[in-house]
Amino acid sequence: MGENIAQKIIKAHLVSGQMEPGKEIAIKIDQTLTQDATGTMAYLQFEAMGVPRVKTRLSVSYVDHNTLQTGFENADDHRFLQTVAAKHGIYFSRPGNGICHQVHLERFGVPGQTLLGSDSHTPTGGGIGMLAIGAGGLDVAVAMGGGPFYLNMPKVLNIKLTGHLQPWVSAKDIILEILRILSVKGGVGKVIEYSGPGVATLSVPERATITNMGAELGATTSIFPSDEVTRLFLKAQGREQDWQEIKADEDAVYDEYLEINLSELEPMVAQPHSPDRVAKVKEVGPIAVNQVAIGSCTNSSFTDMMKVAGILKGKKVHPDVSLVISPGSKQVFEMLARNGALADIISAGARILESACGPCIGMGQSPCSGGISLRTFNRNFEGRSGTADAQIYLVSPEVAAASAIKGVLTDPRDLGAPIEIAQPEKFLIDDSMVLPPAEDPSTVEVVRGPNIKPLPINRELPEKVECSVLLKVGDNITTDHIMPAGAKILPLRSNIPAISQYVFSAIDPTFAERALAAGGGFIVGGHNYGQGSSREHAALAPMYLGVKAVLAKSFARIHRANLINFGIVPLTFINEADYDAIGQGDKLAIDFSKMAEAGKVTVTNLANGKEITMEHGLSPRQVDIIKAGGLLNYTKKQNS
Amino acid sequence: MGENIAQKIIKAHLVSGQMEPGKEIAIKIDQTLTQDATGTMAYLQFEAMGVPRVKTRLSVSYVDHNTLQTGFENADDHRFLQTVAAKHGIYFSRPGNGICHQVHLERFGVPGQTLLGSDSHTPTGGGIGMLAIGAGGLDVAVAMGGGPFYLNMPKVLNIKLTGHLQPWVSAKDIILEILRILSVKGGVGKVIEYSGPGVATLSVPERATITNMGAELGATTSIFPSDEVTRLFLKAQGREQDWQEIKADEDAVYDEYLEINLSELEPMVAQPHSPDRVAKVKEVGPIAVNQVAIGSCTNSSFTDMMKVAGILKGKKVHPDVSLVISPGSKQVFEMLARNGALADIISAGARILESACGPCIGMGQSPCSGGISLRTFNRNFEGRSGTADAQIYLVSPEVAAASAIKGVLTDPRDLGAPIEIAQPEKFLIDDSMVLPPAEDPSTVEVVRGPNIKPLPINRELPEKVECSVLLKVGDNITTDHIMPAGAKILPLRSNIPAISQYVFSAIDPTFAERALAAGGGFIVGGHNYGQGSSREHAALAPMYLGVKAVLAKSFARIHRANLINFGIVPLTFINEADYDAIGQGDKLAIDFSKMAEAGKVTVTNLANGKEITMEHGLSPRQVDIIKAGGLLNYTKKQNS
Repeated sequence: MGENIAQKIIKAHLVSGQMEPGKEIAIKIDQTLTQDATGTMAYLQFEAMGVPRVKTRLSVSYVDHNTLQTGFENADDHRFLQTVAAKHGIYFSRPGNGICHQVHLERFGVPGQTLLGSDSHTPTGGGIGMLAIGAGGLDVAVAMGGGPFYLNMPKVLNIKLTGHLQPWVSAKDIILEILRILSVKGGVGKVIEYSGPGVATLSVPERATITNMGAELGATTSIFPSDEVTRLFLKAQGREQDWQEIKADEDAVYDEYLEINLSELEPMVAQPHSPDRVAKVKEVGPIAVNQVAIGSCTNSSFTDMMKVAGILKGKKVHPDVSLVISPGSKQVFEMLARNGALADIISAGARILESACGPCIGMGQSPCSGGISLRTFNRNFEGRSGTADAQIYLVSPEVAAASAIKGVLTDPRDLGAPIEIAQPEKFLIDDSMVLPPAEDPSTVEVVRGPNIKPLPINRELPEKVECSVLLKVGDNITTDHIMPAGAKILPLRSNIPAISQYVFSAIDPTFAERALAAGGGFIVGGHNYGQGSSREHAALAPMYLGVKAVLAKSFARIHRANLINFGIVPLTFINEADYDAIGQGDKLAIDFSKMAEAGKVTVTNLANGKEITMEHGLSPRQVDIIKAGGLLNYTKKQNS
Repeated sequence: MGENIAQKIIKAHLVSGQMEPGKEIAIKIDQTLTQDATGTMAYLQFEAMGVPRVKTRLSVSYVDHNTLQTGFENADDHRFLQTVAAKHGIYFSRPGNGICHQVHLERFGVPGQTLLGSDSHTPTGGGIGMLAIGAGGLDVAVAMGGGPFYLNMPKVLNIKLTGHLQPWVSAKDIILEILRILSVKGGVGKVIEYSGPGVATLSVPERATITNMGAELGATTSIFPSDEVTRLFLKAQGREQDWQEIKADEDAVYDEYLEINLSELEPMVAQPHSPDRVAKVKEVGPIAVNQVAIGSCTNSSFTDMMKVAGILKGKKVHPDVSLVISPGSKQVFEMLARNGALADIISAGARILESACGPCIGMGQSPCSGGISLRTFNRNFEGRSGTADAQIYLVSPEVAAASAIKGVLTDPRDLGAPIEIAQPEKFLIDDSMVLPPAEDPSTVEVVRGPNIKPLPINRELPEKVECSVLLKVGDNITTDHIMPAGAKILPLRSNIPAISQYVFSAIDPTFAERALAAGGGFIVGGHNYGQGSSREHAALAPMYLGVKAVLAKSFARIHRANLINFGIVPLTFINEADYDAIGQGDKLAIDFSKMAEAGKVTVTNLANGKEITMEHGLSPRQVDIIKAGGLLNYTKKQNS
């Protein structure tokens, strides 16, 4: 029986475990990446491990999240990241050099290798045939230290692409259509692997848009073959030597199948407040727009920006629309500045933002009250824009640019003849904003600002825990709900005591205070608990507040792994109806003593006497981690 | 006896009063400008006057301060400003179009006309021979309504420029040298008028750098002749018809004289934390630098940026320096994008910020803890950068760019052959980001967000006030001390109850609470109280907190006018030693009943029984304003 691409790469990197879907496996990690909002914590954790130099083939530390610098915290973090990278063998991509996923694709990604990144959109690397997975910072720290990455062997969902995109239809419309079909839970526990004749019609940046936003499906990762298109992309990046062909065997078998005919697609839009609330632009109609934002790791490539420049050239932004554009990398930015496209964009009245994540993570450019904002980004969760009542729609760069001119949501096919942008034969290559690590680490002093606080460490899990349900929430709770981002809170990412005050703050501003006062407790959730961003702060900060277990109908993969890493027990309702038998404030007693043997725990609701059996799905290794109070404690124990 | 330029323009605009230094005069205002941080309040005040359409020749509303949009407040303010402008006959410069003073110079300023702006750097317009004065928003609102602007007839200080600048020496070094000589109090009560053979050697942007930073001298304004250089600048802006020659009579007489030989100047630097702590770059030496910031209304012209691009071309920013650059206007930005200079700047590793005030007002790019930042800006007050312990140095663009490459404070003469940039014969002209007012105002609905609160109105001043000294401070207290700016506080500029919580917060975080609890009180200050920014919030917010009078050794002009406008009595110690006879917390009794007749008031310190006589220096009109509880009450009374 032939192998698919995911199986081939996993097999080549397998350290332990059996490659049966759902079973825990461990794989060797070739490359890691971090961004600054998750990276400060990841490097504090790496330091705590006492490994002098990273053991990966390549580790890169990017700065792309906290670039507004509205206080001393961000610049202090940048300095810490720069010095800690120099000391421990990590490449440092300076602020201004661009968004981690875009830069990594351009300059570092290698087909067939594994990449672990402390950012949920790490699967962008799947666009060049990497097995690129998002994880919590601690997992990335472990990988930098040479440890394997543990995950449950995913199923592989094959999406066969046929036909070719019609004019004005774009890669973003492909992934939006897939989100429409599969929903934000549709990829959970799966790698999504693309195949079919449609693949060759898509450029690497187009493929990367699709794998990037596979994160919104809840997928472990997404991956494209590495083919002639990939070779030409790497050649244009001066990296042809990094290319190898990666393809599925002719007789490869997949766990699931889906087929998308590209020829039938048309411009799509994800409506508020979920990336899977997808409709055709024509169906939603010409709603008036207050803001259009173009950029992010999803759609900020050179070709994306050139299409936007082509649409804007000689036109003017509608007077009622604020158009903001962030090029994805210094490479993209400088190329646009050299070839005149940037001048066309500025001429049209666009506001140019630094090459960074910016408004995608609520870092500036919050819309007006109740404002309608079209964004080429990947997430439109409620409040993530920084404006609680804003209505965010996710669209392609073509829809965004057309709408910015018209002032209403616009199908770009109404603009007439399409703009064709060929992939460049040669990109502008200048890695001067990537600082190599120090040759002599002893010369480097790691600089810590006053906002960079020591890592809080959890205690061992008691055998029996009796405390109250601090909060009960519904389905699809995101890590943005649990640990909000945005301009006010992101600068506190290096300071757990401070950032913990904002846990669940948009849902219940009293949460942190109540949790601390109660000496901890439980959280009850619905399906897909912890979807979205990979931020481990969504586990670390609740841990700091004393949360002992989360009881949910189902979990998003990365968040569940983060809970385990920090010693919080993820429990799943065997009988979903039991969710209704627990109310906020109920006191629960949970006996964890037989956890490993039973695979289950019994939860007694002291409020109504009901006994509920829940499964934890933890491997023996994970049970030991939980009992030790988290992965750092577990690792120390192993090493002692 | 011949007239100087200041006298000529004042005479041509005189509405009332005698042109004797120190006497109150009123002048007709031709043009007004506002920026968004002071503008929302100014337009609320304009609305309160009930005038349907502005009566000036031209009024422009700019958005350049609050452009980070870290919450809904900024975008709501922009929408309010856009709609209120459309309704009342005001031109609206959209966010992204640039910094008010740079854009106004390029597109709107007219030699010989008067310009009143709700920003302390409005004197930038003096670079083309305007009488351009900064004022509180309420004064600008009155001017928009057709009312005259009241000020004390200034003395005129003539600065004769001889010689010509040596290579690598710049206009910034001229004004820094003047600040070194005159100090931040040296221009109080004066117009600074430039003359001499050196004038013709300076371009309009160079002149504007000098008049801009005349604000730091405390001057009422600064002004250059309008000559052939001015004509060519306006011609290159497609506005030759706006030119007229403006020069002093051959036998003009001035109140004071100073002479600067440009040939003798060398690169200068203002050291922390005052613009007059000026030394030669060579004297300060090669201190290590963490950040370099280029831009602001002082140094963001096309030629400034071209010089920077020339220095950076083919070089790379030092790895320990973060270089941020904000072009001054869309015109500048697009020209740099068209001619390749922007590509050179990006290539060097600079971070490009939006065309706006940005870091100059602490709106992002705060340095690291204790960081050293070189800035081409105009103010280096402690804490203004957003980092309390940062050390800010003010330098020319040439010094800034050279230092960004070297990593240490660098005299650009060390770079070798200078970069010569000619003034363009034709600027790129595109006013599409300036929206003209609506032809039919009835079609415009003014949109107010929830953060835009009604204007608080003061009550009439009681005849006798007995309360405590809430705070005693020293010399040179800035409006940044009184009402801080920065990313956290600026978004509250439309919401006086909210922003009032931050009055004096960097000096004494308990101030607002104490003031409210005490039902108001007094402030005691030293010399030059209220220097710096024109923000009327530094009067309006203390008024909201119940401050009744400020007792100081001397006041900065704009702030004193703002105090009067909001009904707070500015009292000056006749005997400076009396300052020592009042302590913080002392209860004072002040009898205001004979204020108008006496020109003085008696302050009884109930804590020690001492009687102190203080002068108010108010005109009869100003006494009436104070007694009415401020200018809005006074105007309503007049009209009723």
